[in-house]
Amino acid sequence: MSGRLTVVGIGPGNEAWITPAASAAIAGAQDVYGYGPYLNRLLTRPGQTRHATDNREELARAVAALSAAATGRTVAVVSGGDPGVFAMAAAVCEAVEAGPPDWRALDIAIEPGVTAMLAAASRVGAPLGADFAAISLSDNLKPWALIERRLRLTSEADMALALYNPASQARGGGAARAFAVLKECRAAGTPVVLASAIGRPDESIVIRRLSDCDGEGVDMRTLIIVGSSATRLVARPGRAPLVYTERFARAP
Amino acid sequence: MSGRLTVVGIGPGNEAWITPAASAAIAGAQDVYGYGPYLNRLLTRPGQTRHATDNREELARAVAALSAAATGRTVAVVSGGDPGVFAMAAAVCEAVEAGPPDWRALDIAIEPGVTAMLAAASRVGAPLGADFAAISLSDNLKPWALIERRLRLTSEADMALALYNPASQARGGGAARAFAVLKECRAAGTPVVLASAIGRPDESIVIRRLSDCDGEGVDMRTLIIVGSSATRLVARPGRAPLVYTERFARAP
Repeated sequence: MSGRLTVVGIGPGNEAWITPAASAAIAGAQDVYGYGPYLNRLLTRPGQTRHATDNREELARAVAALSAAATGRTVAVVSGGDPGVFAMAAAVCEAVEAGPPDWRALDIAIEPGVTAMLAAASRVGAPLGADFAAISLSDNLKPWALIERRLRLTSEADMALALYNPASQARGGGAARAFAVLKECRAAGTPVVLASAIGRPDESIVIRRLSDCDGEGVDMRTLIIVGSSATRLVARPGRAPLVYTERFARAP
Repeated sequence: MSGRLTVVGIGPGNEAWITPAASAAIAGAQDVYGYGPYLNRLLTRPGQTRHATDNREELARAVAALSAAATGRTVAVVSGGDPGVFAMAAAVCEAVEAGPPDWRALDIAIEPGVTAMLAAASRVGAPLGADFAAISLSDNLKPWALIERRLRLTSEADMALALYNPASQARGGGAARAFAVLKECRAAGTPVVLASAIGRPDESIVIRRLSDCDGEGVDMRTLIIVGSSATRLVARPGRAPLVYTERFARAP
C-alpha cells in the first residue's frame, strides 16, 4: 500500500498565512478533501479531484480520505487554521484507530498552520504572551460540566484563555454561558477580545471589559480571548489599544 | 512620525513554515532585529541592515527596534515560532507601555507564525486536539511556585499540556521539576512527547510514558507535550505510534 494522506492547515482567512509547505502538500495531492468554503480559497490544479463536505462531518470526511489513500492515492485533507487544534488531525487519528488494520500502514503526515488564536492575538498585541489555555466551548463533543470545570480551574490558575467554537450548534449560547462563569472567577475589568472572520475582508476585532460581555456579537466565526490578572491595555492616540499579558509574574 | 515596526513570526526551524506574509514583512523592512541564529535563516536584501542580538535580551531588542522605528524607519523584529507565544510581541508591548509617549503613535503590527507546540504536535498526530494549556517552565520571569500551581490546576482540569522553555538558564532543571510534579497529578502511563529542534536537520521526536520521564534528554530546544487522560497511542507496524487526544470527553 503506497497511499499517502496529509492533513493540511491553511490558517485562518488570509491566503498570505498559508505556509509554503502547506501549499506544496495541497498542490501535490490527487484528491483534496475539506469543508467547501475552505476548498474555495485554494487554487485548482488540473487532474486534481476535490471532495467538498459539510463542516460538521469531520469523522466521515476522515474516513473518506483514508479510504482513498488506502487505494494508493495521494490525498490532502484541508483544515482551517492549524489541523491539530480542534480540527481534522484528531479526527483522522481517531478514524485510523477505529478503522481497518491496513490503514495503520498508510503514510500519514500533518502540515501545521497558523491557528485562529494566534492570528487573533496578533491583531491586538500579545494577550497570549504568557501562560494560557485553549478551550472549545462546543458541547457537541463533551458535557458542559467539563467545560465549566476547565473555565473555573484555569481561572484559579490565573491563565489567559483562548475560547474556540463559542456558538456551538447544539446549544447556541456557549459564549453567554462561559462569560457568566468567568464573571464569577475573574475581575470585572479583565480585557476580552472578540475576533471575528480573522484575515478576511469582513474581519472585526472588538476589545471589551469582561463585565461588558454577555455573548452578544459572537458567532461561529468568532475567537474569544480572555485575559488574566496580568493582561493590560495600553491606550494609544488615534489607534486601538494594545492588549498584552505581562511576561513577569509575582508569586500566587 | 511615520515609522513602522512589525514583529514577525518565522516558525520553528523549517523555512517552508514561514508564511508569505512574514516573508513579505521581512523583505520590506529597512532594519531587521533578532537573535543571530534566526537572522541567519533569512535571505539578505541589499540595503537592509541587520541587528543581531543575544536571545536573552528581549526587552533591550524591543527598545532598540522601537527607537529605530521612532526615527521613521521601517523595522522588522524577527521571532522564532509565533511572536505572541512566549516571544517578542509581549516584550514590544511592554516596551511601548514603559517608553516615551510618542512610541504609542507608531504603526505597530504583528505577523503570526507556526508556534513550536503546533509543529511538535504535527509530527506525532494530534496530542493537542482537545482542550490544552501552554506553560513556560522558565523561572526567569515568574516564581516556580506559580509554575507548579499551574501544572497542578491544569492537571486537575485534565488538559493536555505544551511546556515551553524546559531548561531555563536560571535553574536548569525545569523539566525535571515539572515531571516530578506531574507524576503526582497524572497517570503513570500518560503519553509524553519530547520534540527537539523541530523542522531542522537534527530534529528528534521521542514518545515516552510519564513514568519514564525525568528531564533527561531535554534542552532549550525541546518542546514537551504531556497528554491528558484522553490521550491515546495508536500502534503502527514499522512506524512510530500516532499520539492523539480524543475529541469526545465524558463528564468529570
